[in-house]
Amino acid sequence: MKQAKISEAVVKRLPIYLRYLLHMQQMQIHTVSSQHIGKVLDLNPAQIRKDLASFGEFGKKGIGYDVDYLVEKIRHILKLDREIAVVLVGAGHLGHAISNYNAYLKDNMRIAAIFDADPAKLGTQIAGIAIQPLEELSETIATRNIRLAIITVPAPAAQKVADQLIAAGIEGILNFAPISIRTDRDVKIYNADVTSSLQSLAFYLNEKKEIT
Amino acid sequence: MKQAKISEAVVKRLPIYLRYLLHMQQMQIHTVSSQHIGKVLDLNPAQIRKDLASFGEFGKKGIGYDVDYLVEKIRHILKLDREIAVVLVGAGHLGHAISNYNAYLKDNMRIAAIFDADPAKLGTQIAGIAIQPLEELSETIATRNIRLAIITVPAPAAQKVADQLIAAGIEGILNFAPISIRTDRDVKIYNADVTSSLQSLAFYLNEKKEIT
Repeated sequence: MKQAKISEAVVKRLPIYLRYLLHMQQMQIHTVSSQHIGKVLDLNPAQIRKDLASFGEFGKKGIGYDVDYLVEKIRHILKLDREIAVVLVGAGHLGHAISNYNAYLKDNMRIAAIFDADPAKLGTQIAGIAIQPLEELSETIATRNIRLAIITVPAPAAQKVADQLIAAGIEGILNFAPISIRTDRDVKIYNADVTSSLQSLAFYLNEKKEIT
Repeated sequence: MKQAKISEAVVKRLPIYLRYLLHMQQMQIHTVSSQHIGKVLDLNPAQIRKDLASFGEFGKKGIGYDVDYLVEKIRHILKLDREIAVVLVGAGHLGHAISNYNAYLKDNMRIAAIFDADPAKLGTQIAGIAIQPLEELSETIATRNIRLAIITVPAPAAQKVADQLIAAGIEGILNFAPISIRTDRDVKIYNADVTSSLQSLAFYLNEKKEIT
């Protein structure tokens, strides 16, 4: 399988390229250089060329990349050229907030079902989607062909919910609970971590501004 | 400046190392190999050794890294060994959710003030912090020595809020609005992007499970 060679770091950068390329499409720009993308996205042009070359050479020296072709290619590699149903578990503040992103999800990706353990929330809706009890999780995932999951439950509940999702056949999990979820099954898990991002930002604090 | 050599990719991985090392400290484990960290965090051991070597050699061949020393070193490099006050702008669902992460923020980092444009929210509290009007933003940032910001306002308001924060002297911004924030000033901006993470996850969907 050719795609196995693409590193996780590249996979994480592809959506960033895609987002900017879609912006260029809107602006009616048809050709772009790695220098330009690098400048806008604050990345090394050589890194961009290397990333894009990892799934075939299709930039032209001195001319650059064809925007439409690159969009199509990246969408295909990321498997965004098909319908992908997503389930969200945890209808608290974060679940609400992420459901509201639904309007920004592109490329046939949609939150299709929302679950919560709290009986008081059942039957209420978020962004037009009825909240279901966890007991219906497996059946809904199977019958609606849901393949990715977002976890927005509190930390103590996250691993158990993940285990349920994995048992139900979910192939990838984006976890927002502030705890690392583990599995020995062949399921991709991203632990989104607000604190990590803040810690990385701290690196860039200006030492000259320190009050010591 | 020595730290200028540390790449952004390394800076983003350091908090991930730190989180696992803190876990090891709790488990009373005092020495760790790059092989072990790599296995747990799903990273190449050679990459880990290279990352950690970028701020000085302090692993010992055949013995590994001293956990306590590495924690101290990473916290120092990330500037987490000092008090860092953070401001959050946007007291909607996402703002609520992130304020609730405050208990998980380690290393002297704390959300110290919350702002919102909606007059109806003023005076109410999130996690014990009173919501203030945007008019007080600059003064609060200055008097309370706030250096980092989290943006959780709707997309159309995000750039304007960022401009205000930057004008007020904020040095780093973690933006959750689904729009890329730009600046020509020397301020580090991370555009947290839920949709990008989901798109990356899609890459790992199992093609054998496709219903075509």
